[in-house]
Amino acid sequence: MIERYTLPEMAEIWQPKSRFKYLLEVEKSVALIQGRLGIIPRAAAKKLQSLKKIDIDRIEELERTTKHDVIAFVTSQAEKAGAEGRYLHYGMTSSDVLDTALSLQIRDGGRLLIGEIEKLEKALKVFVRAHKKLLCAGRTHGMHAEPTTLGLKFAGFLAEITRAKQRLSEALTQVCVVKLSGAVGTYSSQPPEVERGVAQLLKLPTEVIATQVVPRDRHAELFLAIALLGSAFERLAVEIRHLQRTEVGELEEGFEKGQKGSSAMPHKRNPIGSENITGISRLLRGYALASLENVALWHERDISHSSVERVIFPDAFIVSHYATHRLKKIIESLRVNKARVKENLDLTRGQIFSSHVLLALVDAGLTREEAYSLVQKHSHQLGAKQTLLQSLLSDSEVKSKVKASELREIFSGKSHLRNVETLLARVLR
Amino acid sequence: MIERYTLPEMAEIWQPKSRFKYLLEVEKSVALIQGRLGIIPRAAAKKLQSLKKIDIDRIEELERTTKHDVIAFVTSQAEKAGAEGRYLHYGMTSSDVLDTALSLQIRDGGRLLIGEIEKLEKALKVFVRAHKKLLCAGRTHGMHAEPTTLGLKFAGFLAEITRAKQRLSEALTQVCVVKLSGAVGTYSSQPPEVERGVAQLLKLPTEVIATQVVPRDRHAELFLAIALLGSAFERLAVEIRHLQRTEVGELEEGFEKGQKGSSAMPHKRNPIGSENITGISRLLRGYALASLENVALWHERDISHSSVERVIFPDAFIVSHYATHRLKKIIESLRVNKARVKENLDLTRGQIFSSHVLLALVDAGLTREEAYSLVQKHSHQLGAKQTLLQSLLSDSEVKSKVKASELREIFSGKSHLRNVETLLARVLR
Amino acid sequence: MIERYTLPEMAEIWQPKSRFKYLLEVEKSVALIQGRLGIIPRAAAKKLQSLKKIDIDRIEELERTTKHDVIAFVTSQAEKAGAEGRYLHYGMTSSDVLDTALSLQIRDGGRLLIGEIEKLEKALKVFVRAHKKLLCAGRTHGMHAEPTTLGLKFAGFLAEITRAKQRLSEALTQVCVVKLSGAVGTYSSQPPEVERGVAQLLKLPTEVIATQVVPRDRHAELFLAIALLGSAFERLAVEIRHLQRTEVGELEEGFEKGQKGSSAMPHKRNPIGSENITGISRLLRGYALASLENVALWHERDISHSSVERVIFPDAFIVSHYATHRLKKIIESLRVNKARVKENLDLTRGQIFSSHVLLALVDAGLTREEAYSLVQKHSHQLGAKQTLLQSLLSDSEVKSKVKASELREIFSGKSHLRNVETLLARVLR
Amino acid sequence: MIERYTLPEMAEIWQPKSRFKYLLEVEKSVALIQGRLGIIPRAAAKKLQSLKKIDIDRIEELERTTKHDVIAFVTSQAEKAGAEGRYLHYGMTSSDVLDTALSLQIRDGGRLLIGEIEKLEKALKVFVRAHKKLLCAGRTHGMHAEPTTLGLKFAGFLAEITRAKQRLSEALTQVCVVKLSGAVGTYSSQPPEVERGVAQLLKLPTEVIATQVVPRDRHAELFLAIALLGSAFERLAVEIRHLQRTEVGELEEGFEKGQKGSSAMPHKRNPIGSENITGISRLLRGYALASLENVALWHERDISHSSVERVIFPDAFIVSHYATHRLKKIIESLRVNKARVKENLDLTRGQIFSSHVLLALVDAGLTREEAYSLVQKHSHQLGAKQTLLQSLLSDSEVKSKVKASELREIFSGKSHLRNVETLLARVLR
Repeated sequence: MIERYTLPEMAEIWQPKSRFKYLLEVEKSVALIQGRLGIIPRAAAKKLQSLKKIDIDRIEELERTTKHDVIAFVTSQAEKAGAEGRYLHYGMTSSDVLDTALSLQIRDGGRLLIGEIEKLEKALKVFVRAHKKLLCAGRTHGMHAEPTTLGLKFAGFLAEITRAKQRLSEALTQVCVVKLSGAVGTYSSQPPEVERGVAQLLKLPTEVIATQVVPRDRHAELFLAIALLGSAFERLAVEIRHLQRTEVGELEEGFEKGQKGSSAMPHKRNPIGSENITGISRLLRGYALASLENVALWHERDISHSSVERVIFPDAFIVSHYATHRLKKIIESLRVNKARVKENLDLTRGQIFSSHVLLALVDAGLTREEAYSLVQKHSHQLGAKQTLLQSLLSDSEVKSKVKASELREIFSGKSHLRNVETLLARVLR
Repeated sequence: MIERYTLPEMAEIWQPKSRFKYLLEVEKSVALIQGRLGIIPRAAAKKLQSLKKIDIDRIEELERTTKHDVIAFVTSQAEKAGAEGRYLHYGMTSSDVLDTALSLQIRDGGRLLIGEIEKLEKALKVFVRAHKKLLCAGRTHGMHAEPTTLGLKFAGFLAEITRAKQRLSEALTQVCVVKLSGAVGTYSSQPPEVERGVAQLLKLPTEVIATQVVPRDRHAELFLAIALLGSAFERLAVEIRHLQRTEVGELEEGFEKGQKGSSAMPHKRNPIGSENITGISRLLRGYALASLENVALWHERDISHSSVERVIFPDAFIVSHYATHRLKKIIESLRVNKARVKENLDLTRGQIFSSHVLLALVDAGLTREEAYSLVQKHSHQLGAKQTLLQSLLSDSEVKSKVKASELREIFSGKSHLRNVETLLARVLR
Repeated sequence: MIERYTLPEMAEIWQPKSRFKYLLEVEKSVALIQGRLGIIPRAAAKKLQSLKKIDIDRIEELERTTKHDVIAFVTSQAEKAGAEGRYLHYGMTSSDVLDTALSLQIRDGGRLLIGEIEKLEKALKVFVRAHKKLLCAGRTHGMHAEPTTLGLKFAGFLAEITRAKQRLSEALTQVCVVKLSGAVGTYSSQPPEVERGVAQLLKLPTEVIATQVVPRDRHAELFLAIALLGSAFERLAVEIRHLQRTEVGELEEGFEKGQKGSSAMPHKRNPIGSENITGISRLLRGYALASLENVALWHERDISHSSVERVIFPDAFIVSHYATHRLKKIIESLRVNKARVKENLDLTRGQIFSSHVLLALVDAGLTREEAYSLVQKHSHQLGAKQTLLQSLLSDSEVKSKVKASELREIFSGKSHLRNVETLLARVLR
Repeated sequence: MIERYTLPEMAEIWQPKSRFKYLLEVEKSVALIQGRLGIIPRAAAKKLQSLKKIDIDRIEELERTTKHDVIAFVTSQAEKAGAEGRYLHYGMTSSDVLDTALSLQIRDGGRLLIGEIEKLEKALKVFVRAHKKLLCAGRTHGMHAEPTTLGLKFAGFLAEITRAKQRLSEALTQVCVVKLSGAVGTYSSQPPEVERGVAQLLKLPTEVIATQVVPRDRHAELFLAIALLGSAFERLAVEIRHLQRTEVGELEEGFEKGQKGSSAMPHKRNPIGSENITGISRLLRGYALASLENVALWHERDISHSSVERVIFPDAFIVSHYATHRLKKIIESLRVNKARVKENLDLTRGQIFSSHVLLALVDAGLTREEAYSLVQKHSHQLGAKQTLLQSLLSDSEVKSKVKASELREIFSGKSHLRNVETLLARVLR
């Protein structure tokens, strides 16, 4: 139902047929190692390496009787291998192959997602560099606070997305494990050597202590990392939506020729990409929640996590990947209205520089309290066309403390640009 | 990705094409009323009633340019209506038709779901009646507490599911509203009479005060009701899982011929249906969460709820419907092992009746404290083969207070059956 | 840890000592009815009615040994009642008294909360009436869409909060039940008549089918209703925050003399009340989530809900009550800057009326497509100082279709006020 | 309201007064560095180091006017410092000191929590060693699957808790940063050197790119790590609850002399500690959820996270710390009923070894399908008193494939113990 949010390469990984492809890769790897270790005949191991085709129809036919998809899959493959077929899935329990295959699937999905995040990071770096010295209003509580630069704003988003990427990488590393320790994790049906060999073959670590399955705290960590990625995207998306709103007008999402913003209101150009991403972050939080409830499986596992994972694995990967891709495109085509940026900066007629006036007055000997009251009074009683600088310059008390030239310097914005390069060096590499 | 959890009739309602079918129904209803009210020419209104076919290809083609699916849909239909086509969507904003169509879609999905719940209630009533006097262990903290009956247990689940159904019905009633008040809910483009007329036609109420959309608290109430339904299912599913476990063995999910419980362990018969439903309840909680975050849209709405609803509407309806259907089948084929039920009841060798001994001792003049200590002592020091009744009968202090015949009566279980009919009459109608 | 968000009357209900007060009320009610029914001696029932004082020290002392707070409480009271003390808690299990007492506590907390919501509704009605015809920009996607009125905006919030109140009322009605059916809900230790009698005394309904406890779906419904109330508050709070932002400036939360908005920036006046309420809505969603997980207790109950409820009952009631109170005060002292409202309305130089121009062109015979393109062209190519009306009047194609006087009428805003009274009549009673 | 779940040392860190203690530590550190850098007079810096006492009454008095707790706090301290008081909080914005102080508070809370987890790990290691070779039923779907050992079971919990601890450590490391970059993160009021100097003094890293605050994705990572810790505890707690249930009886939480399990049922001994912890995991998930919604603050921040954090920081730390401590005590006093463990292992009369029979038959030349059917038939048709071994030995087809001695070896359980030491070596160091 989410085909709209699907990029084909990620969809490919999570389509039902792919799962069987990964299962087969695991079964073949196991057979290979079992052959090497003499657990099954070398010839059988070799024969099994030739298995390739997934016959979905046959699997479904077999599943109608067995009600067990792994058994149906194994049987469908064993049939094709002839006599050697009986060495397929040898010494294995379903979860051995299922969870190891899931690790491969996650690894591939993770790679795609990380790759897309890196493209987004690049797009953000371009944007940051382009606007690094564009002075704009910094806002706290939605109110003008002090100037910052547009580049610096986006450097903050970049840094957060990079942190999200790192968490995701770590989560992927710890979740993609090989688990071949059998029905309850005791290696009762085949020795740890098989698991170790397959892990080397697949270049993945092995599970420390398994139950029948890879413990689900690992998978939860992954979904939480994806939710955090989504929340990082949301913060950026909300910023764009704020800066595009009619009264602000500093940014605008690219609007293609022929595009319509509203069926009733022909003038509309809306930040629909950023709104879409805001919504997706909610979906990702919902998936994370479900994954946390999957952790406390009963005993050596129950199967309640399965109906959850069947939905949230494809969906969380597909929508987060889509969101990453779309956000990249938004950033690449984001228009900056410099005139509005400047206009907004002047909107408070200089009050945005009030904190520096406060500091100058304290430096000149006023207590913090006195300085605060003085500046607050000027700010809250500012005349309709008057700037804060003008108001201050007309106050003899102020002038007796701070020189006019110093006041003018404060209102030039220079101090707000002073450390931009230092800051950006931390994220632009 | 949830095709496994899909019953065809519910899938039909939520497939992409159906959405356009509902949109068309709304547009036609609007035109009909507008014709009656003289807002558009009567002939145009009549002509538009003949629109029927949804041309997905043409819609997609138009959407590639406009990036706006409702405009694409309206244009595709208008093209077919010739000159009168321009009266389609007349005075409407996209959300008028989208949200009213969503109400129709929810109504239909809701009917299916309620219908399935009613079948489940029937199955539960049959089970409750069949086992109403089957004395079994009641358990608190997972420990035997006092006897109850199997029928009574399931009567509790039935009562909870009925409550969940009523909440769902109420949620459906309040969410399925007609909203035709235009771009920001002021009826600036067409009078309230159109909305009222369409509402009468569709037999639905109208929105009280809309923004551009039906406020999302209504939809959140629905998803919360579905999550509560899921949680009610979970409690029942967890009970079945508990009662099927090897050590308990009182219930068993039906197991079909040829079915395999495990690829490695041929003896296994597992409560996989109930486990599946347990997992689904987690999904439903995740969707509910996302829906709550959809409430606080900005101003007269932003579109962030859309990417969420595109996923959670189909998914929540489809999986909850599936879960209801599956749970019904589980109940219908649930096997009761009466021998194990009896065996377990005797497992504590009578301690399960301890509270009644306590009461009898208090009646005989002991303080609650004294009586408690006395019974606790007998319980905690019970010999390996001894029953609590035997232990008590061997205690002269006890015997001086309570007659042996009275003690025997207590351990017969009669008092636990005394009010069964009274209780069941509350849910079996 | 939430003392800051606590109003004393709600805190009183949920303080630890109050719980014992409610427990005592239940135990006394039970004794009264048991006396009437002849289950315990009438004299004992009468004597027990004199119990009043809660001796926390003694309870804690007893609990150190028994590790069971209800037993400790009952013992502490029984001691004071002398010989008749043994008839206290007669035939009861702890959960009988705990859950019935909780119903009383919820009832009292609910009344306070509902009362506060009603005060908020009143404050909103005053605001709605005061600003019912103040034309302002309606915004979708954060972009100007069509005009609405400030009163109408707030009428929408009022309607949503009223819905939230109704859900809360219903949730309170269904959760506040009397449950005295004993250890596993079978009335094995005392007949249903006691429960019925106590319910009549307390003016509450009885539980339909209990386990040891009142089923937790009822309590979850309550927490979900509180979360929905919080989300309704959030939507309103977010609106105020948006309308107060520097670039919009239409609303401003009251700012008291001496108040400081920022320690560094003396000019700041921030919508901190609305931000506070936005945060609280997140807490309430978190509590709702935990309550949903409380539903699926094991068998006739486990006690895992207890550690959750000990936190979320006081916290959810206290913070939602606080938020209601604070929101009421915000509304009462909300300042409207009518000049900015008007200024913003003119910000798009008439584009906010584009949908009505579209309609007029369609009426004049253009297809929807042609009309849309025409208006979109004028909107997107609007000169720097030009209004949309001027642009349209300079277009001979437009003028040939729509009379200048009709165009001027469209841009007067009259049609947006036309249905205000009709709309407001729905919520102002 | 959670005083019951509070250990004093953790409560101390989060009590309201402590917050001011941390604020003062930051203000003094800043002054010290500012003195060194010549930003404020060295003498002033020195004088400010003597500030020690927190005067809550004075702070509250000042806050009643300013409605700003940091300003009230700074003023209360400045008053005590005399003329040099005006150099306190010099060049700082409230969030500089608030967020840096929060980092210190988190660091201290985190240390306590990690310390307690390490004690829990130790207790688990003792338990694992003690029961490493105690063969017991491994269960999947709640049904007996294959044997494992009790030590191995708990080794799995240990491994998971160790992973949770590592996640928590990483989350603590990344969240505890120093942020002194001013009102919107540009170092406009004081140079990066102050931040760097204070960070060295406090032995913490600095924020990369701040807004007014430390970005909230860092704090969300922490709450997610705590939720994952809670979910790991839940899995263990649920295991104990399962193994204590009447029908299983393998484990029992310690039960102290005088303790009462139920007010009505004197025989009860319930796993209330584990149930308590199960509930706490739900609270922790709720807090994590709220923290995720805190990430997307507006622009250079809004203050909506504050009302959330005021609750969830103390509560999440306090309840997770309490849960860790309580779980440790549960493990330390956990009783193992070896007789019941053995009894349960024999419950399926050997079916628990079925997977190894399957393997032996495949080794002997049967196809997997044939072997599966054969063993499933024997399992599902097992006579009332018959063991699976007996049934197999009576089947000539089986005997023709597998030697009786080999069958007996399978049913001895030896293969399930074979790799225990290898597995345990991974977690016991």
